[in-house]
Amino acid sequence: MKLNFLGTGAGVPSKERNVSSIVLDLLQEQGNNWMFDCGESTQHQILSTNIRPRKIEKIFITHLHGDHIYGLPGFLSSRSFQNGETNLTIYGPKGIKEFVETSLNVSGTRLTYQLIFIELFEGLIIDNNHFRVFAKKLEHGVESFGFRIEEKSKPGQLQSNKLKEVGIQPGPIYQQIKENEQVQLENGQVIYRKDFIGKEKPGRIVCIMGDTRYIPDLQAFVKEADVLIHEATFERNQEKLAHDYFHSTTEQAAKLARNSNVNRLILTHISSRYQKESSQLLLDEAQKVFPDTTIAYDFYETEIPAK
Amino acid sequence: MKLNFLGTGAGVPSKERNVSSIVLDLLQEQGNNWMFDCGESTQHQILSTNIRPRKIEKIFITHLHGDHIYGLPGFLSSRSFQNGETNLTIYGPKGIKEFVETSLNVSGTRLTYQLIFIELFEGLIIDNNHFRVFAKKLEHGVESFGFRIEEKSKPGQLQSNKLKEVGIQPGPIYQQIKENEQVQLENGQVIYRKDFIGKEKPGRIVCIMGDTRYIPDLQAFVKEADVLIHEATFERNQEKLAHDYFHSTTEQAAKLARNSNVNRLILTHISSRYQKESSQLLLDEAQKVFPDTTIAYDFYETEIPAK
Repeated sequence: MKLNFLGTGAGVPSKERNVSSIVLDLLQEQGNNWMFDCGESTQHQILSTNIRPRKIEKIFITHLHGDHIYGLPGFLSSRSFQNGETNLTIYGPKGIKEFVETSLNVSGTRLTYQLIFIELFEGLIIDNNHFRVFAKKLEHGVESFGFRIEEKSKPGQLQSNKLKEVGIQPGPIYQQIKENEQVQLENGQVIYRKDFIGKEKPGRIVCIMGDTRYIPDLQAFVKEADVLIHEATFERNQEKLAHDYFHSTTEQAAKLARNSNVNRLILTHISSRYQKESSQLLLDEAQKVFPDTTIAYDFYETEIPAK
Repeated sequence: MKLNFLGTGAGVPSKERNVSSIVLDLLQEQGNNWMFDCGESTQHQILSTNIRPRKIEKIFITHLHGDHIYGLPGFLSSRSFQNGETNLTIYGPKGIKEFVETSLNVSGTRLTYQLIFIELFEGLIIDNNHFRVFAKKLEHGVESFGFRIEEKSKPGQLQSNKLKEVGIQPGPIYQQIKENEQVQLENGQVIYRKDFIGKEKPGRIVCIMGDTRYIPDLQAFVKEADVLIHEATFERNQEKLAHDYFHSTTEQAAKLARNSNVNRLILTHISSRYQKESSQLLLDEAQKVFPDTTIAYDFYETEIPAK
């Protein structure tokens, strides 16, 4: 489980930061990747990474502002050009389908794969073998969503030592014990899995928020995340500006992280008014409130280690 | 009069070549610039040039394929963000208005300036103080246009020596003579401008073609251009491929240049199959037929000197 930040700027691209996009690399976990937002030039950013567009099978659009969606038509077309064949599902607010379909239709683009649109709603939006994803509305003038991605916990290891102690030797029976709550042996003895299995491995939690004002109430939604990704468009002393433009400051994001008992905070969506040198200022402000904070930059890549 | 090539690749962006866009710098001539096509990431390319988006007042879209239009919504939004105030006119095939308006509406973008759409047709599309622009349909599966931009000729210099010889001394009268076909002096003498004015300075001609199959008949449209910009998606021996995909080869573009008595040929829209080293091959093929050929590259800039 790895995060790749493809664009970490706000509103307009600058030479230093492209507009928003993040890829959550789940190749190890389920053999594909998920993308969060797709600002213009996301496909260009991908050219400088190892990410293969055909491996991206879900795209989550937090909200419809141009700096979060204008890269979609180009990304989708190039994925097709590069022989993407697996379906791709786009989760986004009402309007994303119209934008994508108009773009593809007007340009006469026929994709090699099927596109599925799911209009976002609050609550559980995905529940598959490995993950549960929840969506929640934020405060951004237009409908904007945050996502909580919960990896499902994994059963513990089979404790072969214990099995041998009770006289059960390795063989296909081990797999049966692992897969069933109880198994009856040929001699009539009943084996309960819970007696021979190690501690369950809890899954990881990643929370990726769209653009938003500071919402203290968001604590419950992001609580105990291994990583919380939150926007920090402005510096600490621009709270009024942040509020007026439906954005957050460094300090506000850090407060949310601190109050929610998350493990790490990564700030992104940094206004172009803060060029390289000012990043340290933003970081200092956040770390005063929540020490384990990082300011993302384009091509920043970070592992989320298993627990 | 200067040409800036912002994107010179075909279909999909590569690290070496972005998708199509050209800026014709007319700051000297009329104080603004014109853009031809606006592929994704054109606004990002502009960040590495001196071009100011607010100085671009007309955009000509040759055809609606994604690699020629997907940069429009982002460019238009950023032009607004950067305080562009002058109207912007987009000339393009039917469909461009729907694409742009849907993109801006869905993303809730309100521009600071007025957007005017003109649906392209064959013939004279612009006739202003300085330029005449003609459009012509090409052959590309979808409607695709080429443009012939003719700078109007300028009246010659007033020949003050000659005026002095006949006893007319410098003063406001000179301006009157320059601006009128004939002027009557106070002494009743009639002065004909043609007798005191130097040779008319012919204007320059730039022809910018959209994607197209080789059309030998195009000679009349591009004839005697100072610069002809033509696509060369493929190498010489891929004529069949070029035909099947509605594109041209190096040699075909060079033939058109040679047969049309143009001054210079610039090739662009180069397939990503040709990376740096192969450019020389493409150039050699074209130069065999038409020596004054250049292969454009991203950020290639060239002056078109006055005659």
